[in-house]
Amino acid sequence: MKPTHVEHIGIAVTSLESAMPFFEFLTGNKCYSIEEVADQKVKTAFFKVGEVKVELLEPTSPESTIAKFIEKNGGRGGVHHIAFNVNSVEEALAEASKAGIELIDKAPRKGAENLMIAFLHPKSTKGVLTEICEQPK
Amino acid sequence: MKPTHVEHIGIAVTSLESAMPFFEFLTGNKCYSIEEVADQKVKTAFFKVGEVKVELLEPTSPESTIAKFIEKNGGRGGVHHIAFNVNSVEEALAEASKAGIELIDKAPRKGAENLMIAFLHPKSTKGVLTEICEQPK
Repeated sequence: MKPTHVEHIGIAVTSLESAMPFFEFLTGNKCYSIEEVADQKVKTAFFKVGEVKVELLEPTSPESTIAKFIEKNGGRGGVHHIAFNVNSVEEALAEASKAGIELIDKAPRKGAENLMIAFLHPKSTKGVLTEICEQPK
Repeated sequence: MKPTHVEHIGIAVTSLESAMPFFEFLTGNKCYSIEEVADQKVKTAFFKVGEVKVELLEPTSPESTIAKFIEKNGGRGGVHHIAFNVNSVEEALAEASKAGIELIDKAPRKGAENLMIAFLHPKSTKGVLTEICEQPK
């Protein structure tokens, strides 16, 4: 795989509203986008730092994987996943599969910001939930 | 605070040797440096992805905070901290303190790669262990 850069760092939070002031302070930038991703049952807020985005994820349902992550984490948020930008998610998935890496998503699907995304399984990624993503054409 | 970029993503691993092949695959780059930080009781391995480094951290003693992190995490590694690069750690600490953020390090200290570093307390950072760091002059 040959990612161009770290696209974003996904951080689970219990509430966007209560988390945003800290991340504005930390990144030195205002949130530039708030978006609900109904499919994943989350509301997201984005901040830029250099070429990387910080993506805050607030669950909108107890069924959300983010709600389950927070529950498992003693009711606290924290780093949920790291996303690497590639030119083709489809090619990267094929490479990962060939390298024996277990996939959560066998095919690219649509994520926040119109990215095409796919997750690799943390079993195969040393406990780091890893997303690969591709910019919209 | 006005960080220039995400300097690195710190990932706890049980063994550098067993983790390195996956991170070479994921970043598309060979490890460019292995360094022991005696002070923190860790051995580190670095990979570049765009402007960000992936820093793997293997504990060299059960007393290491990384060993304790892995133990608390059910024996598995995972994302340990996120480091933001600033022009002056001293100034950033003063700003953070003024903003009511609890500090782990009240003054900059030396980290891997000769960076000056300091950690903010996850209590004040929404569960994300946050490092701020400054390049050597």
